[in-house]
Amino acid sequence: MSKNMETITNHAKHRGFVFPGSEIYGGLANTWDYGPLGVELKNNVKKAWWKKFVQESPYNVGLDAAILMNPRTWEASGHIGNFNDPMMDCKNCKARHRADKLIEDAAEQTGKEIIVDGLPFEKMEELVKEYNIACPECGSHDFTSIRQFNLMFKTYQGVTESSSNEIYMRPETAQGIFVNFKNVQRTMRKKLPFGIAQIGKSFRNEITPGNFTFRTREFEQMELEFFCKPGTEIEWFNYWKDTAENWLKSLGMTSENLRLRDHNEDELSHYSNATTDFEYKFPFGWGELWGVASRTDFDLKRHMEFSGEDFNYIDQETNERYIPYCIEPSLGADRVTLAFLIDAYEDEQLEDGTSRTVMHLHPALAPYKAAILPLSKKLSEEATEVFSSLAKDFNVDYDETGSIGKRYRRQDEVGTPFCITYDFDSKEDGMVTVRDRDTMEQTRVKIADLKSFIESKVQF
Amino acid sequence: MSKNMETITNHAKHRGFVFPGSEIYGGLANTWDYGPLGVELKNNVKKAWWKKFVQESPYNVGLDAAILMNPRTWEASGHIGNFNDPMMDCKNCKARHRADKLIEDAAEQTGKEIIVDGLPFEKMEELVKEYNIACPECGSHDFTSIRQFNLMFKTYQGVTESSSNEIYMRPETAQGIFVNFKNVQRTMRKKLPFGIAQIGKSFRNEITPGNFTFRTREFEQMELEFFCKPGTEIEWFNYWKDTAENWLKSLGMTSENLRLRDHNEDELSHYSNATTDFEYKFPFGWGELWGVASRTDFDLKRHMEFSGEDFNYIDQETNERYIPYCIEPSLGADRVTLAFLIDAYEDEQLEDGTSRTVMHLHPALAPYKAAILPLSKKLSEEATEVFSSLAKDFNVDYDETGSIGKRYRRQDEVGTPFCITYDFDSKEDGMVTVRDRDTMEQTRVKIADLKSFIESKVQF
Repeated sequence: MSKNMETITNHAKHRGFVFPGSEIYGGLANTWDYGPLGVELKNNVKKAWWKKFVQESPYNVGLDAAILMNPRTWEASGHIGNFNDPMMDCKNCKARHRADKLIEDAAEQTGKEIIVDGLPFEKMEELVKEYNIACPECGSHDFTSIRQFNLMFKTYQGVTESSSNEIYMRPETAQGIFVNFKNVQRTMRKKLPFGIAQIGKSFRNEITPGNFTFRTREFEQMELEFFCKPGTEIEWFNYWKDTAENWLKSLGMTSENLRLRDHNEDELSHYSNATTDFEYKFPFGWGELWGVASRTDFDLKRHMEFSGEDFNYIDQETNERYIPYCIEPSLGADRVTLAFLIDAYEDEQLEDGTSRTVMHLHPALAPYKAAILPLSKKLSEEATEVFSSLAKDFNVDYDETGSIGKRYRRQDEVGTPFCITYDFDSKEDGMVTVRDRDTMEQTRVKIADLKSFIESKVQF
Repeated sequence: MSKNMETITNHAKHRGFVFPGSEIYGGLANTWDYGPLGVELKNNVKKAWWKKFVQESPYNVGLDAAILMNPRTWEASGHIGNFNDPMMDCKNCKARHRADKLIEDAAEQTGKEIIVDGLPFEKMEELVKEYNIACPECGSHDFTSIRQFNLMFKTYQGVTESSSNEIYMRPETAQGIFVNFKNVQRTMRKKLPFGIAQIGKSFRNEITPGNFTFRTREFEQMELEFFCKPGTEIEWFNYWKDTAENWLKSLGMTSENLRLRDHNEDELSHYSNATTDFEYKFPFGWGELWGVASRTDFDLKRHMEFSGEDFNYIDQETNERYIPYCIEPSLGADRVTLAFLIDAYEDEQLEDGTSRTVMHLHPALAPYKAAILPLSKKLSEEATEVFSSLAKDFNVDYDETGSIGKRYRRQDEVGTPFCITYDFDSKEDGMVTVRDRDTMEQTRVKIADLKSFIESKVQF
């Protein structure tokens, strides 16, 4: 059965994964709140990333920089000057559009895939005419010329709204890493190569957010900036590309829904000598999850210029002195969570003619690792003991209402890999029935072994 | 030896816990970045809270609502109307001050403790005169009258800066919970009593942030809203107060540095029938960590009024219909992290006449659970294997530079509870020496037992 965004969005809402933001007040333009199941799923995604990219890595350490930064940061990074979307209005209905998106959509409909990002405005305006683009709202062909629109949210710190108090909500977490390069390197006594990893919220005032949690104005990033010796960067670029791909696959992402798209010469940023986008096949098309870019020494150099700080690294073995090169694997936490959600979703036709909705989430990502289900309410006390003992180590659910069959289905719908039934024999033999979500097979397991059983399954 | 804020701030900076935000650009008014050790410590604090307040709780579930909310939320919550600080300027030097703070400080110097919060401005202006308050910047006694200053950061969503696009950065996480009360209750099929827990960033445009990470404009909260039947709220208020106290103590917070201060009648908000502040004895004085408040049905009622949504709960056993009452234990993640950091810090005089700096962090909170130290670089390969195997389950460090004594000291300074030395016998007997941070005692442990050894120590 086809997975479309409406099915996914409804399922996410009705099973406690993702609610529309501020829903009781009519919402707020594509904001979303993670519900009880969604926050566990997303936290598991973040933990899984941290585990592989920080905890198990002999190279990397973590960081958690503030969202509010000195505005000079955004001058150095180029966000104040260049972080703009090309915007044009329909003269007839006043609707506002991103010119690049309209052109790309129009090209796609004629079977072409073109990249508009980076083209001069005059060229874009030519393309609007060439493809005879109409306003998606009213059909008019009469547009204003294309203008820049800066995507950073601006606010004021302190008690007066003067330009000297202007600050921005960070549009990416990466710059918090670059400005701390020296602090981290010195305090952690790090030698190259090493990386700094960070998870945190960023904000972009997108003209047209959309596609559920795929493009939102408030979003969370998982970024790594990996510093290495110039000349070794392509080797490390490949290393992190492989690590990223392995991470996705080891957590069960379907290979056919994942593609790695290398940027060609025209598409590469002027400072990058290699970039690959990881794209997932969403129901609305291929969408970027992870950008892995070799950024040379561009970022550190810019901050050196703007701050006067010396970011040269002295190689103690060779006595060489250089500005490190940098590899940036940058992953959207909300996007990859959405991809895992979609990838796991199935409306399954069963052999007995019935059907079920099941989320085949990897046990490491599943909100509940197990659900404890007493066969009868008479067994509540004993089953609760099993729940409490497992809850010390895992997020587990407890459910004693409805038939066992119904309870199985409810757990299938939220992706719980194991249903543990406590029955009238359990008290005697110290064993419970463990039912597997995917195979629906049941096996008898000792209560004392449940912890190690689950522990072995959440490995990835 | 006395712990003062300067010692703590320096130690935090030089050992990779907390760096000044945007430091290379001269900083940004009391913003701070958590370094590699700090992010682990703070993450451990958050995990420990989530473990007790969500995972192990039979009542509570989690949530992660957006920072950006529909502005009607802040009308309903009262933040647009009432979330103000009383501000006054020095007419001489133009410095801006919080009137309530100046008055409280002046009163304290005369040995009195008074609560200014909530007094009318005329009364505050009288107190300014009564205590003969001088401008802390220039000494003048000539102030403007007191005015309201709203503490919410304002920004604009969408492409024009019109008032219809005005939104706010949330000043607390709590309202994200209230607006989702129904969504959570329904999708999780929850019966009262139940709670919704959330961890997330909030923002307040404080006039005078300060005291390191104690008061910052950007901060993280760990809030629980616990809903119960009217009439049972004091019972639950006490339950969560006890749970909160046990949590702090089970993670090693020193009892003498913690006090619970009940609000008296005058101090209680008009909607609250019980409030207790948990205060920690910081080097700069007692400061609030945790506010536990019984808030009756105030919040849900306000949102009912403003949204038209029905928040009545139907008790299926008694068929009663009522708006739930709410208990709110609200904890500052940065503050409690700072309190644990201070509490753990010791400049210790040793019996042999030397001294060491040691952080007695509970193993559950310590950034590194253990450090793997090969006795010689010749043992790198084998020691790295021990590191890699432990790194699958814990955040651990690896250090092979300098004498063992120096390496012990470095780990003491960041609070690593166990130093694991791999020596020339280890290869033969499969054992390593484990040195305890606090007692400095050494014991021989089987490599195969290290995981369960550490696992038992991180329990709380």
